[in-house]
Amino acid sequence: MEININRLMSDIEAYSQYGLGSNGGVTRPSFSEADYTVRDVFKTQLEEMGLEVTIDPIANIWGKLQGSRANNEAIIVGSHLDTVPNGGKFDGALGVLVAKEIVQTLIDHKVKLKHDLEIVSFTAEESNEFNYSTMGSRAFAGKFKEAELIDAVDSKGIKLSDAVKKAGGDISKIEKLPNKNIAAYLELHIEQGRKLEKEDLSIGIVDNIVGVYRDKVIVEGVANHSGTTIMEERQDALVAASEMVVSVQKHAKKVNSDAVATVGKLEVFPNATNVVPGRVEFMLEIRSANKIERELLIKDIQQSFKDISEAHNVKLSFINRLNHQECSFDKQLIEAMKDVAESLGHPYIVIPSMAGHDAMHMADITKAAMLFVKSANGISHNPKEFTDSEDIRKGANTLLQSLIKIDKELTLTEMHESSVDI
Amino acid sequence: MEININRLMSDIEAYSQYGLGSNGGVTRPSFSEADYTVRDVFKTQLEEMGLEVTIDPIANIWGKLQGSRANNEAIIVGSHLDTVPNGGKFDGALGVLVAKEIVQTLIDHKVKLKHDLEIVSFTAEESNEFNYSTMGSRAFAGKFKEAELIDAVDSKGIKLSDAVKKAGGDISKIEKLPNKNIAAYLELHIEQGRKLEKEDLSIGIVDNIVGVYRDKVIVEGVANHSGTTIMEERQDALVAASEMVVSVQKHAKKVNSDAVATVGKLEVFPNATNVVPGRVEFMLEIRSANKIERELLIKDIQQSFKDISEAHNVKLSFINRLNHQECSFDKQLIEAMKDVAESLGHPYIVIPSMAGHDAMHMADITKAAMLFVKSANGISHNPKEFTDSEDIRKGANTLLQSLIKIDKELTLTEMHESSVDI
Repeated sequence: MEININRLMSDIEAYSQYGLGSNGGVTRPSFSEADYTVRDVFKTQLEEMGLEVTIDPIANIWGKLQGSRANNEAIIVGSHLDTVPNGGKFDGALGVLVAKEIVQTLIDHKVKLKHDLEIVSFTAEESNEFNYSTMGSRAFAGKFKEAELIDAVDSKGIKLSDAVKKAGGDISKIEKLPNKNIAAYLELHIEQGRKLEKEDLSIGIVDNIVGVYRDKVIVEGVANHSGTTIMEERQDALVAASEMVVSVQKHAKKVNSDAVATVGKLEVFPNATNVVPGRVEFMLEIRSANKIERELLIKDIQQSFKDISEAHNVKLSFINRLNHQECSFDKQLIEAMKDVAESLGHPYIVIPSMAGHDAMHMADITKAAMLFVKSANGISHNPKEFTDSEDIRKGANTLLQSLIKIDKELTLTEMHESSVDI
Repeated sequence: MEININRLMSDIEAYSQYGLGSNGGVTRPSFSEADYTVRDVFKTQLEEMGLEVTIDPIANIWGKLQGSRANNEAIIVGSHLDTVPNGGKFDGALGVLVAKEIVQTLIDHKVKLKHDLEIVSFTAEESNEFNYSTMGSRAFAGKFKEAELIDAVDSKGIKLSDAVKKAGGDISKIEKLPNKNIAAYLELHIEQGRKLEKEDLSIGIVDNIVGVYRDKVIVEGVANHSGTTIMEERQDALVAASEMVVSVQKHAKKVNSDAVATVGKLEVFPNATNVVPGRVEFMLEIRSANKIERELLIKDIQQSFKDISEAHNVKLSFINRLNHQECSFDKQLIEAMKDVAESLGHPYIVIPSMAGHDAMHMADITKAAMLFVKSANGISHNPKEFTDSEDIRKGANTLLQSLIKIDKELTLTEMHESSVDI
């Protein structure tokens, strides 16, 4: 049994039309018009496949194929359909569409698993205007209180609660998550790095995800007229923030490892040509698989910011937005994927993920694992993001067979455990 | 004869309500909702005063009080009603409302000038999303071709031609400007610097305006995932742009004069926390009264940008947006204002303006001059912008009496010239 690679590639192409820009980039952040449209398309297609479609309180979309047992324990396969602004067509969407293709393949071949099989498309995996990335999986894993989210607004003043409601969710019920019995979670995703390409391999089995730390940084100077304010009297928030951005790169380059640090989002206020900037807000992000190294880098960068703000006579504040620890995936699932890849004749490496994924939150509530497929030139979050159909075919078939193997193994374990209980 | 300072201060307060934010700042950029509202209020009040109100092709608002002669030559008094985002209530509005107060005072005292007297509120004096500051006076002075403006759009995709039309203008008729016979232009404005405050003076008579140079700078790197792109492989447009911002301040501080250089507006693309910035656009602004010094500073800063872009392997481009030469005001008008200030007992200094004003474009088509009033702490483009009512009273009365004096002097000159012709 194999997935239908032509059907899958058509699907990837079709979904990329929602939010497609003139340069080939896809702009489909969660709760954008393109996102609301693609949600409707996805739900309709799941229903047409005969799946039971539900929307949970954070507006994650679920499609269930009933298993042969009656206990309602599910294996979940999925990813996310949102993109960064001007992103690619594979990051996220590939994992969701491979899940859909796998379920369609099982239906076509009349193969029934013992577990329920659920496809999921998580809400707002990417960084977004509400400043909560992996929002859907984090919420599903029970990590949000309603009070944390209730006041979130985007730059246009739209409330997160209203945006979620429009997508069929209900933030007031968020603390009831997770609302399912789950046996395992599997996710296929593009690597977004160059490791597989360098080794000339189609697939990688992911053993862990780096820790990610994010601060919102606010620099406050004094807004004033750009003509009449002499250089010596300025408290220019943008000059101070610019030195900070330069400092972030300098510190990250000094660390002799895979650690990375980035300022990807920055906003200037009032942002007018003839006004000395009075305020700058930006997001600082630091990633490393090594906790001690990560914490040292955070400390050094924050200290350099303090020194810079003092030298420029501006006010500095940090608001922590994310402090996600490194995560290790389930050994049993990793072994199952290795066995399947070997038996299918698809060579692989075991690699860490430098990017956060929904799987890291799912790993906190169930057995979880991820499969990477090769990214051309490691480019992602960019219109040039690309993965070859042959790599996708190998990845999707590995995931399909792993799912079948895991369905059996987890049933056996459970039967075994049950017999011990007796 | 004196202006009514209480009526004028009430007017300033009343106009500041349009676009008023919770922190006391006024946000009333041209073509914002607040601007359209204040335009309607202003037109209605001019009509109620019995003035003949017209809107010209760039949507400048004019209110005419007929003079005693039939030749329709006008002395113009005015400024602008638009503000920067989160600006003050005096920059611009003060000059328009003083003009209105002066005309009302003349009407109240049944004083009729020989010249027509026109109040003007110019469109879009401040930097704006269409990237054409002093738009109204520049257009009135005949400096725009229709073709230059026809494609301008703001960040929401609104066409300038539509925005102007909504305000009663018509860009297709812009090349017919200036459409008046003009004898002189006078403008009262807050200083926006500290020179008057340091000398403890209420008023300053402006002898010239610095040259202003503006480039839009575009830095293009490669957008990529912030986790999977190792530091050594990045082409981060924001890190490069940040070094440029720091370089601008460094170069301007090195010049031993009143020259200033600023990056006030900067935007990051795609501007997402987990994407290495692929593109940054910012506005570079350089001001100096000395042409040679200004051009040297422009050259040095542009060269430093080239060096930085090469070091970071990013693409750099400049689009010149403004290259306004320094401007000298009319000696006859300056002398008239000096005489009036002395006779009223208001001590003054003659000072240059570090800020551009509508008067600099008017100076290209008629005799023009400006009067400054003291700014508290030199703060402008900020909610804390403030000018004391006593300083405003002295400034407005000086402008009123200067206007009466100039009306007489210019009539005499003309009669003399006529007699020579015969």
